[in-house]
Amino acid sequence: MTFLDDFATLSSFGATANGGVHREAATADDGRARWFLADWFDRNGLTTTVDAVGNMYGSIEFVPGAPYVLVGSHLDSQPTAGKYDGAYGVLAAAHAAYQVIECVERGSVTPQFNLAVVNWFNEEGSRFSPSLMGSGVFIGKFDADDILKVTDRGGITVRDALSDIGFHGEDQQLDAVSYTEIHIEQGPILEQEGTTIGIVTANWAARKYSITVHGEQSHTGATHMALRHDALVGASKIVLAARELTTQFPDGLLLASVGQFDVEPNSPIVVPSKVTMAIDVRSSDPDVLEQAHDMLLAAIAQETEVHVSIDSSALRPSTSYQSEGVELAEEAAKDLGLSYRRMLTMAGHDSVNLKDIVPTVMLFVPSVDGISHSEKELTRDSDLLDGVTMLTETVARMVRGDIGVAKATELTSAGSRQR
Amino acid sequence: MTFLDDFATLSSFGATANGGVHREAATADDGRARWFLADWFDRNGLTTTVDAVGNMYGSIEFVPGAPYVLVGSHLDSQPTAGKYDGAYGVLAAAHAAYQVIECVERGSVTPQFNLAVVNWFNEEGSRFSPSLMGSGVFIGKFDADDILKVTDRGGITVRDALSDIGFHGEDQQLDAVSYTEIHIEQGPILEQEGTTIGIVTANWAARKYSITVHGEQSHTGATHMALRHDALVGASKIVLAARELTTQFPDGLLLASVGQFDVEPNSPIVVPSKVTMAIDVRSSDPDVLEQAHDMLLAAIAQETEVHVSIDSSALRPSTSYQSEGVELAEEAAKDLGLSYRRMLTMAGHDSVNLKDIVPTVMLFVPSVDGISHSEKELTRDSDLLDGVTMLTETVARMVRGDIGVAKATELTSAGSRQR
Repeated sequence: MTFLDDFATLSSFGATANGGVHREAATADDGRARWFLADWFDRNGLTTTVDAVGNMYGSIEFVPGAPYVLVGSHLDSQPTAGKYDGAYGVLAAAHAAYQVIECVERGSVTPQFNLAVVNWFNEEGSRFSPSLMGSGVFIGKFDADDILKVTDRGGITVRDALSDIGFHGEDQQLDAVSYTEIHIEQGPILEQEGTTIGIVTANWAARKYSITVHGEQSHTGATHMALRHDALVGASKIVLAARELTTQFPDGLLLASVGQFDVEPNSPIVVPSKVTMAIDVRSSDPDVLEQAHDMLLAAIAQETEVHVSIDSSALRPSTSYQSEGVELAEEAAKDLGLSYRRMLTMAGHDSVNLKDIVPTVMLFVPSVDGISHSEKELTRDSDLLDGVTMLTETVARMVRGDIGVAKATELTSAGSRQR
Repeated sequence: MTFLDDFATLSSFGATANGGVHREAATADDGRARWFLADWFDRNGLTTTVDAVGNMYGSIEFVPGAPYVLVGSHLDSQPTAGKYDGAYGVLAAAHAAYQVIECVERGSVTPQFNLAVVNWFNEEGSRFSPSLMGSGVFIGKFDADDILKVTDRGGITVRDALSDIGFHGEDQQLDAVSYTEIHIEQGPILEQEGTTIGIVTANWAARKYSITVHGEQSHTGATHMALRHDALVGASKIVLAARELTTQFPDGLLLASVGQFDVEPNSPIVVPSKVTMAIDVRSSDPDVLEQAHDMLLAAIAQETEVHVSIDSSALRPSTSYQSEGVELAEEAAKDLGLSYRRMLTMAGHDSVNLKDIVPTVMLFVPSVDGISHSEKELTRDSDLLDGVTMLTETVARMVRGDIGVAKATELTSAGSRQR
């Protein structure tokens, strides 16, 4: 059982012809990847449990009644995506846990907490919106019952989709004392610098907009231009306005684009009546993001041919990972002789949710050319293996209680109060 | 049995909440409308036959072995469309035929030809592409076997869709000697002028483009802007370039828009890799259309972030309806005391196909505000009824042989040669 062999097997579930994966949340291929992971837990001394929103845990109890160090990521992918995003972090977590268990068994790590690998449900949000769904329920940001009713475009609910693959569980979520996750960078910085490990100090601020452009359906071949209210023309202007935003700030400071874009009624000879779209704007600088927000609203307000409604405009603020976790990771990398640097995450991760409730360590390994959400996504084998080594050392230190003691005390006293 | 009562019944098949219809070709609702029509034929002395591509005929033989005057239009609609487009012409044809049969029976019309009402399959082209499908097979422009293999977006073939509703027929298509069709104008001219009948002399020239914009899939939240190849940004520029074309010529001379537009992979946090779109450009002036064609290609050639392929660029030339048919209609309108004018058709119709093989008369009635392909489509009852009167007189003159004699001679000698 080597990590790379296991990773090759995991990458076969939903594999695409061009070397990527297409494994959206709670699809049959996601189910196959999950059963592989459950079997892996079973063969390696971890107990599989599944909570109501499909978060999957492989846990081991070292200290009866103590809370858990969680380590994981997500097995779901975007459509026609890369095989590393999420899946690498889950398998690295499993292998790290395996090695930490061995350390505990031979006495080189004295555990203060228990340990669980976790596969969060629907990090990507492509099939079921919003993203970061399982971890969002875990931290109490979303209500599980609400989430179970969310439907995909075919009208299938989260509840039914999870049931169909056998992962609508009844187990309790575990008490977390701390969390760590390793992920590919999805940007070019580590590779360009030749650095092996990124230690994340904060996430970029992001705004996600859901927008509807309302026009009026008419005939492409018979309606005079002056009488048209073409929703696609209005929507195209907004797409270009979002792109234009990025040129208004110093290079690299703002990202903006439209990923989802649906036209109605979408017939060759009908002027579109409606376009719905999802705009994604991000910056490392919250002030820049707010300026961009104002500029985008101003551009939208200029539309006269169509009516534009902003259905939602959710802000994901830039927040910091706990310094105790950053320092733990720096010391671990230094002791392992791995090159490392502090950095921000541009992309969202389940760790962005977890850090709101427990000390959280977020680690990156290099992405070749920074390419992600693409079949061309690549992280070199040596970087994958260095990442597993780094994650193992980080988990060992978390299990022995280098961070999270204050959280554990809080959990214990909450438990006492409940009794 | 009044025309308006029948029209209300016909409009109930696929009716929408806002007073329109949603009755795409060979859907269950199209099937219900077709069974209503077949029953109508049966009750009113017409024999129903259906050819291999679902064209439906309600025929009567006055002169054994003689060819047929065809009169009709189409029952299929665009999505969320109006109830008049096509359906009015089919029901008007049925009522006109009923009255002409009565005239023949009481001796006021001496028939030289036989008569058939026709409902052409898939005029709209929204579910199955291309449009004008049934009449295209009828005139030999398309091969029936090729057409039967065309699939909708769900992968259902024309053959299976027609079989599912019971309209994949085995009857021969009829020998046509002439054709007439009445339709709503889908433009504002007749209403603005207060004219009742439009007599079409030629169709606008049109170009239909199928275009694919190829970008590169990446992460909306992590890919630097300079590294992006965003298919949606490129496609949006083309949508606006098509609109811009229309401002380069005198008002009303050029129409251009994009009706169908599909984004892949269409996920909120993925930079789109591909957009396919259908561009529709029309002009009354063939030279203007060609200038617009060159301008559009030049605009597309400026794209550098993405690669654009023009998958097809089909020209529907401006061609004339036979002058003998125009004159027949003018005389009929004059004799009936209906106001009339000559005009062009901006939209395509099955008659544009039929006129390539037989003398063809195309008639219009007013559209309120020129609105079409919309639930707001409206033609006033008095105009509907005047149109039926006009069509009846036109069909009577065609049945008695005012036009089409040369065609009939041609058909007879072809038949002689075949023997």
